[in-house]
Amino acid sequence: MKQSHLFTKTSKQVPADADSANARFLIQGGFVSQLAAGVYSYLPLGLRVLDKIKNIVREELDAIGGQEIYMPALQPKQLYDKTGRWDAIDVLFKVEGHGKEYGLSCTAEEVVTPLVKEFVKSYKDLPVAVYQIQDKFRNEARAKSGLLRGREFSMKDLYSFHADEADFLAFYEKAKEAYLKIYSRCGLEAMVVEADGGVFTEKHSHEFQVMTEAGEDHVYVDKETREASNREIVPEADWGSDKYEVKKSIEVGNIFPLETKFSDAFKFSVQDAKGKQISPIMGCYGIGPSRTMGAVVEVHHDEKGIIWPKEIAPFGVHLISLEGRDGEGRVREVSEGLYDDLRAAGVEVLWDDRDARAGAKFADADVIGIPVRLVVSEKTLAEDNVEWKERSGDEVKMVNVGDVVGMLKG
Amino acid sequence: MKQSHLFTKTSKQVPADADSANARFLIQGGFVSQLAAGVYSYLPLGLRVLDKIKNIVREELDAIGGQEIYMPALQPKQLYDKTGRWDAIDVLFKVEGHGKEYGLSCTAEEVVTPLVKEFVKSYKDLPVAVYQIQDKFRNEARAKSGLLRGREFSMKDLYSFHADEADFLAFYEKAKEAYLKIYSRCGLEAMVVEADGGVFTEKHSHEFQVMTEAGEDHVYVDKETREASNREIVPEADWGSDKYEVKKSIEVGNIFPLETKFSDAFKFSVQDAKGKQISPIMGCYGIGPSRTMGAVVEVHHDEKGIIWPKEIAPFGVHLISLEGRDGEGRVREVSEGLYDDLRAAGVEVLWDDRDARAGAKFADADVIGIPVRLVVSEKTLAEDNVEWKERSGDEVKMVNVGDVVGMLKG
Repeated sequence: MKQSHLFTKTSKQVPADADSANARFLIQGGFVSQLAAGVYSYLPLGLRVLDKIKNIVREELDAIGGQEIYMPALQPKQLYDKTGRWDAIDVLFKVEGHGKEYGLSCTAEEVVTPLVKEFVKSYKDLPVAVYQIQDKFRNEARAKSGLLRGREFSMKDLYSFHADEADFLAFYEKAKEAYLKIYSRCGLEAMVVEADGGVFTEKHSHEFQVMTEAGEDHVYVDKETREASNREIVPEADWGSDKYEVKKSIEVGNIFPLETKFSDAFKFSVQDAKGKQISPIMGCYGIGPSRTMGAVVEVHHDEKGIIWPKEIAPFGVHLISLEGRDGEGRVREVSEGLYDDLRAAGVEVLWDDRDARAGAKFADADVIGIPVRLVVSEKTLAEDNVEWKERSGDEVKMVNVGDVVGMLKG
Repeated sequence: MKQSHLFTKTSKQVPADADSANARFLIQGGFVSQLAAGVYSYLPLGLRVLDKIKNIVREELDAIGGQEIYMPALQPKQLYDKTGRWDAIDVLFKVEGHGKEYGLSCTAEEVVTPLVKEFVKSYKDLPVAVYQIQDKFRNEARAKSGLLRGREFSMKDLYSFHADEADFLAFYEKAKEAYLKIYSRCGLEAMVVEADGGVFTEKHSHEFQVMTEAGEDHVYVDKETREASNREIVPEADWGSDKYEVKKSIEVGNIFPLETKFSDAFKFSVQDAKGKQISPIMGCYGIGPSRTMGAVVEVHHDEKGIIWPKEIAPFGVHLISLEGRDGEGRVREVSEGLYDDLRAAGVEVLWDDRDARAGAKFADADVIGIPVRLVVSEKTLAEDNVEWKERSGDEVKMVNVGDVVGMLKG
């Protein structure tokens, strides 16, 4: 993409209401724009990052047998009447229209359970694992921390249905591994943390936590066993004890055993191999792509701006032309050639072809945080080179123009 | 994808509440599932079709300089206070939370205008064309006709901003061409129809109408000039006249000149080349991908099911194995080889690897409507062939196993 075409601009001004590094840098870089507390628009650069995170999620969930579907945001109240959660979920937004009441999706057990029930008639149809990537809504009393706690945000919710406990547990472990792969591809090192199972199960659920000082969660790591737990399941008496190392963290996902709570509520049962009626055992598994994006910025930035991990960077290469006095000259020509050749080789390029000073272009590049910066100027071309600098380091090297495409390709 | 893995199943039963061919066949084929009136879940096959339509829209809008963004569904009431549309838009769903009121996106002028204003500071920053593909909500008194008139549906909304009328008009024409390309790639022949400009302009707006008996709109085609108009702008006296040929149709998109109504409401002005303050001239352009999907089914089906146009079919090839008595035999082996080779060649394949009768498999294939059906059986393999049949025709031909991949590739 040519930067002259991009309608957003970076901003030097730190946004007054940015209460976190992710809000600050994402707004300054023109990735997102805040519409209301906890409600953001995604601009061209930000949407590219978000879509890349979503596609990583898709790839890893498809790899464990997940089938992508897409359920509505308008969830009829009658469904909640069966589970008793209409009033129990305090963050549920409620909407009325022509005498009908709907909850705005903040989770989807009430929709997915009857949906899967439509098609699953026998234990032979199990297991089923379906997921969606959908915007969710939470009527939060206090939205904060940029993309970390929003009123409207992107969520991937996966639901699995099993004929027996062993099958559920095997899938639960596979989902855990898939989640760790997803975070790793997004440039995050996540820790699996034991948490309370909530009202559905005696078992523990699991959170995925990324350690960072910017986090508002706390992880308790047992100094001896190295097992990590959240605050909820560490006995209160131990909160201050020497037994644990306490780390600040951001929760980027969680997985829950749901037992048969929802299958039972929707009278969803099938015959097992012996002809006995059984209620499918369910699990649910959530990742917030937009929250993950926020967490990535919290972890990967310096004082100048964002340092995107390679797989989710909005572009792989930031090509910067310093045209000197002659906009039609060799700098332009070589830049255009590189732009075309890199794209033909499948490399995503943001080309700063604007009529602007070098200092302004470099400052923009630092805020935007694309992994590789290539500078083409009369000076570098005097030796047939471009200047190559990675956003994550300080080293500047000269690379022959003819070698650039080969070095960046796949 | 292996059909044995697909959690949905086709249904022989015509759904009781299906008031249209698209609702009937999409539900019977397991493409969608109705959650409430006008509210549908997209199942794996249906989501694939919807995503393909969305990607065609993206490609054609990017080609005319559109920049994709993504705006929130929660639109703060204050924005509507500036345009006076809070009560004027009768289909606006309203939500309240912690003392704040939001409209649920049914259009986005109130969001996009201040958003673009943030970044556009001079006439040199114009034109700007931004679009999003987002779910929209309409509090319809009566949702009907499957995906044609929903309470929640997918919409692409594009907004353009221009320094002068000539630039607006040039872009408006480009958008018109892009729309016609989009429909054509989706297998629809759309007609550009003049319509009233509404409250924003003296000019006409334009609708894109697909002629079909299933439509609930009427297009008036002037027998002499062949110009098409909608009922609104044909003088009432002429409704029954001989002057027009009247055709039933489905509206699949529309484009509107908005003049400066929204720029003015949000005090969005920039200096022009002569230093004069001007309000950018706006246009808005809408296509409903889900409605388009419904229209495609209305146009492309027979009594057995859907006949998907090639570019938006959920899969390009339906590979059907009739295994005879020996599931481990040559039928399986050849099918698996074809499945792998086709996918390696970039062909999307649904492989009916289920343990089911031939009749049931063929009936499913007719409902699902994938363009090319390949049948592998002991009989066809006796001559080293597979049976090739296109969903849109009756001709059955035998093709040598070794030729199949080459014939379907790209």
